[in-house]
Amino acid sequence: MNKKELCPVEETIKLIGKKWYLMIINELMKNPRRFNELKNSIEGISSKVLSDCLTTLVQEELVHRRVFSEAPIKVEYSLTEKGRDLNKIFKDMDEWGTKWVIC
Amino acid sequence: MNKKELCPVEETIKLIGKKWYLMIINELMKNPRRFNELKNSIEGISSKVLSDCLTTLVQEELVHRRVFSEAPIKVEYSLTEKGRDLNKIFKDMDEWGTKWVIC
Repeated sequence: MNKKELCPVEETIKLIGKKWYLMIINELMKNPRRFNELKNSIEGISSKVLSDCLTTLVQEELVHRRVFSEAPIKVEYSLTEKGRDLNKIFKDMDEWGTKWVIC
Repeated sequence: MNKKELCPVEETIKLIGKKWYLMIINELMKNPRRFNELKNSIEGISSKVLSDCLTTLVQEELVHRRVFSEAPIKVEYSLTEKGRDLNKIFKDMDEWGTKWVIC
């Protein structure tokens, strides 16, 4: 299929339409985070699932993995420009959730 | 937990953060649809999964199920006000996907 024939909404859903991806991106919108910080802030996520999700999000260039050369090694995850550019979607979810769920 | 302590983004993700839900809502943003129309327009979805998703979306009051009393019985699915109010999120996904995926 030619790229021009793809539906941008469907392609976005295929990329980020997964509860854990959205939860991780939501956390990283607030601040860069270390693995354990992410694990502790996302209720119910296992280390294995978090690790797999982060690997995919890094591959998709939504998340940047930065390794600090100190002992013990420190690894920090943050959003790339592509990832940060999803902020409008999260702002809208905030508005929608405030109106329809937290009311 | 008090409702006021809930995070609106997380609650929204819990409600709609699933590929199939998002695909169905995206289709219904365009027009009301019958079951088979939805099935044919959403690539890869099985009848069982579509049926289960629609049941949940109706329970969550995002989708309205309308039965027309004609023979054979016609059932049409459309977005409720709560569902239609997600349109900004889908518009943002359209913009993001156009910029970062279809380029």
